[in-house]
Amino acid sequence: MRDPLNPAVVAIKPSGIRKFFDIVSEMKDAISLGVGEPDFPTPYHIREEGIYSLEKAKTHYTSNAGLMELRTEICRFLDRKYHIRYDAKNETLVTVGGSEAIDLAIRAMVCPGEEVIIPQPSYVSYEPCVILTQGVPVTIRLKEEDEFRLTAKDLREAITDKTKLLVLPFPNNPTGAILTEENLKEIAAVCVEKDIFVVSDEIYSELTYDQKHVSIASLPGMRERTIVINGFSKGHAMTGWRLGYACGPKEIIQQMTKIHQFAIMCAPTMSQYAAVDALKNGDEDVAMMRDSYDKRRRFVLHELRDMGLPTFEPFGAFYVFPNVAEFGMTSDAFATKLLEEQKVAIVPGTAFGDCGEGFLRISYAYSHEKLKLALDRLRIFVEHLREEQGKR
Amino acid sequence: MRDPLNPAVVAIKPSGIRKFFDIVSEMKDAISLGVGEPDFPTPYHIREEGIYSLEKAKTHYTSNAGLMELRTEICRFLDRKYHIRYDAKNETLVTVGGSEAIDLAIRAMVCPGEEVIIPQPSYVSYEPCVILTQGVPVTIRLKEEDEFRLTAKDLREAITDKTKLLVLPFPNNPTGAILTEENLKEIAAVCVEKDIFVVSDEIYSELTYDQKHVSIASLPGMRERTIVINGFSKGHAMTGWRLGYACGPKEIIQQMTKIHQFAIMCAPTMSQYAAVDALKNGDEDVAMMRDSYDKRRRFVLHELRDMGLPTFEPFGAFYVFPNVAEFGMTSDAFATKLLEEQKVAIVPGTAFGDCGEGFLRISYAYSHEKLKLALDRLRIFVEHLREEQGKR
Repeated sequence: MRDPLNPAVVAIKPSGIRKFFDIVSEMKDAISLGVGEPDFPTPYHIREEGIYSLEKAKTHYTSNAGLMELRTEICRFLDRKYHIRYDAKNETLVTVGGSEAIDLAIRAMVCPGEEVIIPQPSYVSYEPCVILTQGVPVTIRLKEEDEFRLTAKDLREAITDKTKLLVLPFPNNPTGAILTEENLKEIAAVCVEKDIFVVSDEIYSELTYDQKHVSIASLPGMRERTIVINGFSKGHAMTGWRLGYACGPKEIIQQMTKIHQFAIMCAPTMSQYAAVDALKNGDEDVAMMRDSYDKRRRFVLHELRDMGLPTFEPFGAFYVFPNVAEFGMTSDAFATKLLEEQKVAIVPGTAFGDCGEGFLRISYAYSHEKLKLALDRLRIFVEHLREEQGKR
Repeated sequence: MRDPLNPAVVAIKPSGIRKFFDIVSEMKDAISLGVGEPDFPTPYHIREEGIYSLEKAKTHYTSNAGLMELRTEICRFLDRKYHIRYDAKNETLVTVGGSEAIDLAIRAMVCPGEEVIIPQPSYVSYEPCVILTQGVPVTIRLKEEDEFRLTAKDLREAITDKTKLLVLPFPNNPTGAILTEENLKEIAAVCVEKDIFVVSDEIYSELTYDQKHVSIASLPGMRERTIVINGFSKGHAMTGWRLGYACGPKEIIQQMTKIHQFAIMCAPTMSQYAAVDALKNGDEDVAMMRDSYDKRRRFVLHELRDMGLPTFEPFGAFYVFPNVAEFGMTSDAFATKLLEEQKVAIVPGTAFGDCGEGFLRISYAYSHEKLKLALDRLRIFVEHLREEQGKR
C-alpha cells in the first residue's frame, strides 16, 4: 500500500504544549501550570443563555457567517473598546474560536511561496497554518531586551519581495508582552510602506494590566489591510464553547466566509446565543477576572524574581516567561527534570519557537493555592539545581 | 494596494444552496424546501445533557481529539451498527461536524497535483476542499439510469496515475441514492487493485429506508484505506451543535488530529457531553425520526410522480431529486421562476455539480403541511408551464 499522507503535513511538528500533559494526567500529585485557559468557569448568566437556547430548541444551523444579532454586538464591542468600526453584515465572521479564524485568514490570503512573517515566541498554530497553505513562514525573534516587543526595525529587515502577511500576536502568548500605540504606529508605517497585510490576533485584548489594548486596525491606513481576530475564550472564560470571530475588509471576509461555509458550516448555535449575552452583560465579569489575574500576575512575578530567575514583567494575557538560561540546560530538559523531581508541569519556551530556548511559560490562570504550591516546588528545584551546579 | 487574496480561493464558486435563501428570508409567504437539516429539534434528553454540562460548569477545552468517553461510545456505535472496529484512543477524532472531518481528511492526505475522484451530484464541500489543498478534483457523473449509484466501471475509468483518493458520498445528498453491499464490493475491489484511498462520508448512515447502511470500511481490504466520516447532525437532529467524527487508520487520524489541534483546538465541550447521551440513549429517537421521514418520503415521491415529474425513488437521506428536463429550462431558471411565481424555494440540481442539470433537490425534512402546500404550488407551476409550452 502506498503512503496515504501528504508529507508536508507529516513534517509539521505537533504542538509542544500538550506533550507534558499526557504525562501529568497519569502522575499522581502533579501540578500543572501549563494549560492556556482561564481557571474560571464561564460566568453563570452566560451559561444561562446557552441553557435557555437549548430549552427553546435553538438547535439548528445559524447562517454561515453567524447570527446577525451576535455580529452586531461584536461590531458594537470593537467600536466601543478599540474604536474600530466594522459592518456586521459584510465585514464580520463568527468562527470556531480564534483558531479557526487564524486558519481561515491564512487560507484566504496566502498563495504558495508567499512569505508570512511570524514574530516568535508566539502561539503554536501560525506556522503550521502557513505551511498547510504552502506559504513560507519567516520568523522574527522577539528579544527579552526589547521586552519581547516587535520592533519596526526587525520587521523591516524581515520583509522581502515575497512577503504577503504579518501575524501580529499581541497581547502575546507565551511572553505576556503587549505593544504600545507608539510601537504599533511604527509597525503600521512599515506595513503601509511595504504594502503588506496584517492578521492581528487580539484574543487576549481584554486581559491587559497596565494600559488599554490598542488594535493596529484603528491606526491610519491599517483598517484596509488588517484582519482582526478575537473571541470569547480568554476574556469571557469560554474556551469550551469554541467561539471567535474575524473582522476586516469585505473582500477578505467574504473569501474567509466561503472557506468557513465549506469546511465548518457555522459556529455552534448555543455558543452564539451565549456570546450575545457575554458582549451585552459581561463587562463586569471580565473586569473581575482581570483583577484576579493581575493579583496572581504580581504574586508570580515577585516569587520568580525572588528566587533569582530574571523575569520580564508581562502586561498582557496570563503568562510569565522566566529566563532559566543560567542553568545551561535546554528548556525542555529543565521542564522534564522539574516534572520528574518536583511534579510541576510547565511548558518549555521552545514550544513557541526555537527562540524560546532558555525560557519557560508559566500560566498564572490557576488558583493562588496551586500557584503557591507549584512555585514553592520550583524554588526548591532551582535551589537544588544551583547547589548541584555549584558543587561541580 | 496589492491584491490581498489567494486567486485560487477567489475562483471557488460559493455554494449554490444558500443563494435562494437570502431571497426567501425577505419574501413574505415563501416556503422553502431547501435547507438540508432535520426539522426536528434535538431530542430533549440530549439537550438536557448539554444543559447539565453547562450547569456543572464544564466550559473548558476537552482533549484535542475529544472526550475519551465520547470516542469510546463512537467506537461502540460503529461496531454495533456497521461492524467496523476502531480504537477509541488512536483511531477516532471528534470534529466540528462532518464538514470539518472532510476538510481534515483531504488536507492530511492530498498532495498538490494529486487527483481526488468525486462522484456528482454530491454535497457541495468536497470539490472546494480539494481545490484548497491544490489537489485536482475529478468528477464522475452519477446517472439517473444507474439510480445515481457509483459503478465500479465508471470508477475504474476515472482512475489515473495521479489518483489518490475517492470521496464516497452515500447515502447521497442530493439524490437520496444509497449503495448496496454488492456495489460496494465491486468498488472496494477497484480501490484495492488501484491502491487508492477512500473518504466515506456516511453522515446520513442512520437514515436509510429500505435496507441497512453498509460501510465500505467493513469490507475486506478496505479498513486500512478508508476514513469513515460521520456525525450527529442528521441522524440525531443536532446540526447546531456542530459535532462529527472521523475514524480510520492510526497514521491518518494522527495527522488529521494534528491539523485539528492547530486549526480548531477541539470540538465544543457541551456538544460532546450531549453526544455521549445521543449514542447511549438515542436509538429510539432516531427510529422515530426515520419513520417520520419515510412517511414524508413516500408522500413527496407519490406527489411528484403524480404530477408527471420522473423521480428516482431515493432510499437514503431526506431528499428527492425530480427530473424537470422536459421543460427545456436550466434547473436554475426553473427554480428561480418557481420562487418568483409560486414562492417555493427549491435548490437547483446544479448546486451539486454540473451533472445535476435538469434536476431539483427537494428536502422532505419539513412538516407534512408545509410539504403539501409547497407541492400543491409546484403542481400549479408545472401545469402552467406545460400549458404555456403547449401553446407555443
